[in-house]
Amino acid sequence: MVHYTNKQVLFLNYPTGFPVVGEHLGLQTTEIDPVLEDNDILLRNLYVSADPYLRGRMRNVHDSYVPSFVLGKPFSSGGVSEVIQSRNPKFPVGAIVVGETNWEEYSHVTGARVAALGLQVVEGGARDSKIPLRYWVGALGMPSKTAYYSLKIIGQPKKGETIYISAASGAVGQIVGQLARLQGLRVIGSAGSDEKVDFLLNELKFDAAFNYKKGNILENLRRYAPKGIDIYFDNVGGEQLEAALEVMNLYGRVISCGAISVYNGQVPYGVRNLHHLIAKRITIRGFIVSDFEKQESANFRREVSEYFLNGDIVYKEDIVDLDDAPNAFVGLLKGERFGKVVIHIADP
Amino acid sequence: MVHYTNKQVLFLNYPTGFPVVGEHLGLQTTEIDPVLEDNDILLRNLYVSADPYLRGRMRNVHDSYVPSFVLGKPFSSGGVSEVIQSRNPKFPVGAIVVGETNWEEYSHVTGARVAALGLQVVEGGARDSKIPLRYWVGALGMPSKTAYYSLKIIGQPKKGETIYISAASGAVGQIVGQLARLQGLRVIGSAGSDEKVDFLLNELKFDAAFNYKKGNILENLRRYAPKGIDIYFDNVGGEQLEAALEVMNLYGRVISCGAISVYNGQVPYGVRNLHHLIAKRITIRGFIVSDFEKQESANFRREVSEYFLNGDIVYKEDIVDLDDAPNAFVGLLKGERFGKVVIHIADP
Repeated sequence: MVHYTNKQVLFLNYPTGFPVVGEHLGLQTTEIDPVLEDNDILLRNLYVSADPYLRGRMRNVHDSYVPSFVLGKPFSSGGVSEVIQSRNPKFPVGAIVVGETNWEEYSHVTGARVAALGLQVVEGGARDSKIPLRYWVGALGMPSKTAYYSLKIIGQPKKGETIYISAASGAVGQIVGQLARLQGLRVIGSAGSDEKVDFLLNELKFDAAFNYKKGNILENLRRYAPKGIDIYFDNVGGEQLEAALEVMNLYGRVISCGAISVYNGQVPYGVRNLHHLIAKRITIRGFIVSDFEKQESANFRREVSEYFLNGDIVYKEDIVDLDDAPNAFVGLLKGERFGKVVIHIADP
Repeated sequence: MVHYTNKQVLFLNYPTGFPVVGEHLGLQTTEIDPVLEDNDILLRNLYVSADPYLRGRMRNVHDSYVPSFVLGKPFSSGGVSEVIQSRNPKFPVGAIVVGETNWEEYSHVTGARVAALGLQVVEGGARDSKIPLRYWVGALGMPSKTAYYSLKIIGQPKKGETIYISAASGAVGQIVGQLARLQGLRVIGSAGSDEKVDFLLNELKFDAAFNYKKGNILENLRRYAPKGIDIYFDNVGGEQLEAALEVMNLYGRVISCGAISVYNGQVPYGVRNLHHLIAKRITIRGFIVSDFEKQESANFRREVSEYFLNGDIVYKEDIVDLDDAPNAFVGLLKGERFGKVVIHIADP
C-alpha cells in the first residue's frame, strides 16, 4: 500500500454571480491510501481542461446537459493521466488515458466508474508523439472537437464565404478561425483586448479582427464584413448575436456554442431582431460536442493532428499549475485569460 | 377589342404602424382596353390570397425575400384566374391558371411577365374537381405548402412528440396542427379569441388549446405540455418564442415561420433565453416556401389533396369580396380575422 498526498480543487458552494475563490471553490490537500479491488485503477493526473461551460456545473440544478458538480467534491473535466496502479487489464500500469478527470493529483477510479468517465487509453504511443500530451485536453480535446464538429456540420462552410467568430482567441474560437481560413473563408474575429486582436491578426492570420469593448460591434461588423457574414460562430450570445443577425446574409448559419454573457448571473440581453431568421432563412443551432462524436471523431483526429504536425494550425495555451487553477478558472470566466487554459498537475 | 371595367386594390403609401385603408391602400376602378401582342394573355381573376407576409411588401426597402409593392400599383399575391384572351399557346382561353396575381378584376400579362409571375395552368380539369378552385390560393396554395414543407423538413415530427403552434387558427397554423395530429403528435395551439380556441379543440381536434390573451403563456404551456414541447411552430415571435424555448425538450426544433408581432412597427420584444439553444441543442430555422418547392411540391399535392378528399383535414376560410379586401387585410394583421382570408374577385 502506497501513501499519497493529494491536492485537489474542491467545489465549495453555489455562486450566483462570478465564483469567488475560497468561497465557491478552493484548494485542499488530503492524504490517501488507495486499496484497489478488481478492475480498479489509480491515476496520476497530468493535465485537466478549464473551460467556461464548467460554470454551468456549479449550479444546484440537474436539468442540464452535463452533470452538476457535487458540493465538497473535486471539480472535474476532460483530462489526461498516467495509470500508476492497476487491477484492470485494459488499463495497464504506464498507460496514458484520457477522459473525465478530477482536478486532483491522484484519482482512485473503481472499475464501475471507468466507463462512466469515458476513460480510454491513448493509442499509438502518446508519449513519443510530436504532439504534446497536454494537447489531449485542448488542441486535440473537447474544445477543438467542438470547433471542428460544429463548423463542419452546422456551419457547412463554403470557400469564399465570410465567418465571424466571437471570443475568437479562446480555446474554441482560435481553432474555428484557422479551420475556416484553411477552407478558404474570409475570417473575422472579435476579442476583449488589443493584445488578443493582435494575436488574431498576426499569429492566426485572420483577415480582420476587432476589440469588442471598443466602438460599436455592429459598425465594426459592417466595416470588416462589407459583403455580410454567412456563418456566425457564437461563443457569447446577447448583443453580439443581435449584431451578427443584422449583417447576416441569406441562408446564414449561426453556430450556437456558448453564452458566456449569461453564465454568471448577469441580466440576459434580449435579442430583438429574430425576425431576420425568416427574411434571411437563417438557421441557429445549439449542440454539444458529444452529439457529433460518433460521426466525426475519426475525421477530426486525422485531419486536425495533421494540421498540427504540418504547422498549418497554431494553438495558444495558457498553462497554469494546480495551485493557481481556482484563480485561473475565475479569470477565464471574466475574459481575463488569453488562449486555452490548461491546468498542469504533473509532468508526464 | 373588348373594354373592361377593372376594380383594383392599390398600394398608396408606406405605413409605419398598421396600414390604414384609404391612406396606405385602397380601391380604385379604371377602364382598360387590352390589346394583346404575341404571347400575351388576359386573365379574369377569381381569387387571391391575403396573408400577413404581405405587410412586409409595403416597405420602402428592397432587401427582403419578396419584392416590395410599387406605389400606385396593385397589391399582388398568389391567385387563381381564368384565361379569357390569349395569344400564348401554353395558356389557351378557358384555362385555369395559378401564380402571382394582382388584386384586380382583369390582368393583362405580357408574354415576358408570364414566367416571372410563375403562372401555370392547373392540370387535370380543375373546374371539375371535388376540390374548390379557391383552394389553390389557400388550402392547396402557399399557406398550406408553407405548413407541409416546413413541418416535414424543419420540424421532422415523430409520433408521440408534442408540437405547439401559435396563431394556430390561421391559414398556416390549422394545416400544421392537422398534419401533426395525423402523424400521431400531441398538438397544442394558441389563438387570440375563445371562439378560435373552441374551433381548434372541436373542429381541428387539437389535444389542447388556449387563448394567449388570457393568462400567462408560459403557465399555459406548462399546463398543456407537461412533458415539454419538441416542435414549436412560430407564427408570431417575441414573447411566445421565449415561452416555448423555456419548455422545449432536448433537440427541440423551432420552425420560424412568421413574426407578425414585429410586422407593424411595434417595439420588438427582446428574447432573453436563447442560452437554452445550447443546453437543449435546439435548432431554430427560418425559411420561405420556395426553398422547398422543388423538393416537396409533388409530395405536398398528392398527400394533402388526398387528405382533403378523404375528409381527414378541414379548412376554415374567411372569404371576402374584393370591395372588402383592404379592410379584411388590415383586420388580418390585427388578428381580427378567423381562418384563411381568401379574396373573392369573381365566380369561376
